[in-house]
Parts: sequence; structure tokens; C-alpha cells
Amino acid sequence: MTCKPKVVKWDEVEAKEVPENMATKTTIRWLIGPGEAPTFYMRVFEVQPGGEIFEHSHPWEHEIFVLKGKGIIRINGKEYEVEEGSVVYIPPCAEHYYKNTGDEVLRFICVIPKEGAQK
Amino acid sequence: MTCKPKVVKWDEVEAKEVPENMATKTTIRWLIGPGEAPTFYMRVFEVQPGGEIFEHSHPWEHEIFVLKGKGIIRINGKEYEVEEGSVVYIPPCAEHYYKNTGDEVLRFICVIPKEGAQK
Repeated sequence: MTCKPKVVKWDEVEAKEVPENMATKTTIRWLIGPGEAPTFYMRVFEVQPGGEIFEHSHPWEHEIFVLKGKGIIRINGKEYEVEEGSVVYIPPCAEHYYKNTGDEVLRFICVIPKEGAQK
Repeated sequence: MTCKPKVVKWDEVEAKEVPENMATKTTIRWLIGPGEAPTFYMRVFEVQPGGEIFEHSHPWEHEIFVLKGKGIIRINGKEYEVEEGSVVYIPPCAEHYYKNTGDEVLRFICVIPKEGAQK
């Protein structure tokens, strides 16, 4: 499968609710996921107004590009305001937390190494 | 360096011209690059109207998200039309080519594994 091209619109990919022990008002789409690529995977998260992804950490990094909306991302206790066009690198093992602080959806791309896949 | 968070707006990162033996009317920004992340790197390309990235191949994959504009991406001889919101996976070793076929900039995120870095 990792030898086949894939071309799709992001919103054609099924959105799944992130479980309530991990987040509120949040969905995930696996744009390029396990079985499709060899090294890293691309997802899109959508956090509705007031929604949040609870603080957590893991031994892999995140590379994030914010497509729409406004929010805060807290990394190891420091808060960063983000909006459309923000780029965020979250290092391995950092505690991180997200909240939509705006009036519209907070939508962002989040790329992870394959070790982080819990599809 | 890969242990430090990074938060930046994409257009605050310097745009560099892609050399004319590789492309026309094209810039690259290394949003998260060598020395900043351990596994893979995030770049933004901008191809101006009529510009193209010449056909080439390499042993690493691309994961692409189109932010703006219209174009075609050819992968192993097959053309795909892309626009804002298109997601493209280009497998390792595939021949690939890009052209902006629209009237505005074609802007896309392209993530590569660290092996592909030629900053």
C-alpha cells in the first residue's frame, strides 16, 4: 500500500470522534495513515468552539499547521496563541494541551511518526 | 534543538528560490527543518502561475496538503488535478511533477522524512 499514490480532498476522509477521555468536541481524520505511508502520518483535527484536547504526553513529536480558527496550545506549561497559518513543533515527551478559544472551528493538520499511530 | 518547541507563522519563515535546474517561479520555506525535529520535516512551496517543478524522483515519500490555488501533480505518468484542500501521497521512488495551472499562487505543505533534507 505504501507504493500507491493517494489523492483525496481532506473532507472526503471520514471524521471520527476523539474519545471523551482524551478530548471534548473534537474529531480526527486520518488523511494519510497506517498502511498508506512508511514513515509518518498526516491527520486533521477539528475542535469545535469551547472544545479541548486534554493534557497528555508521549515519546513522539507533532508537527502542526493551523488551517482555520483560533486557539491556544500549551506545551510544558507555556501557552501559545495560534491561528490560521501558525506552525507548531511539539517535541517528544512534552506535555501538551489544546483549546479552541474562538467562535469557529479550530482546524489543524498534525503529522506524527508511525510510532504514534493509534488509529 | 529537537527538544525545543517552535511556534511561528508560516510566512515569517524565509522563502528561498528553488534553483532553476529544479523548478521555475517556485519558492520553498522550511517551516520545521533539520536541527529542529527528529523524524520528518515540514516545508511550504509556492509556485507562481505558469511555474512548475520539473519531473524527478528520490527514495523518500512526500505527504502534501494544498493550501491555495490550482494545479496538476503528475505521479508516474498519471496527472491529478489538485486545489485547496487536496491531500497527496507520493510514494518513494515515484516520478513526480507539479504545475500551477491557475491564476493565483499554488501553495502547498510538503512533509518529507529527514533523509530527504537538502536544505
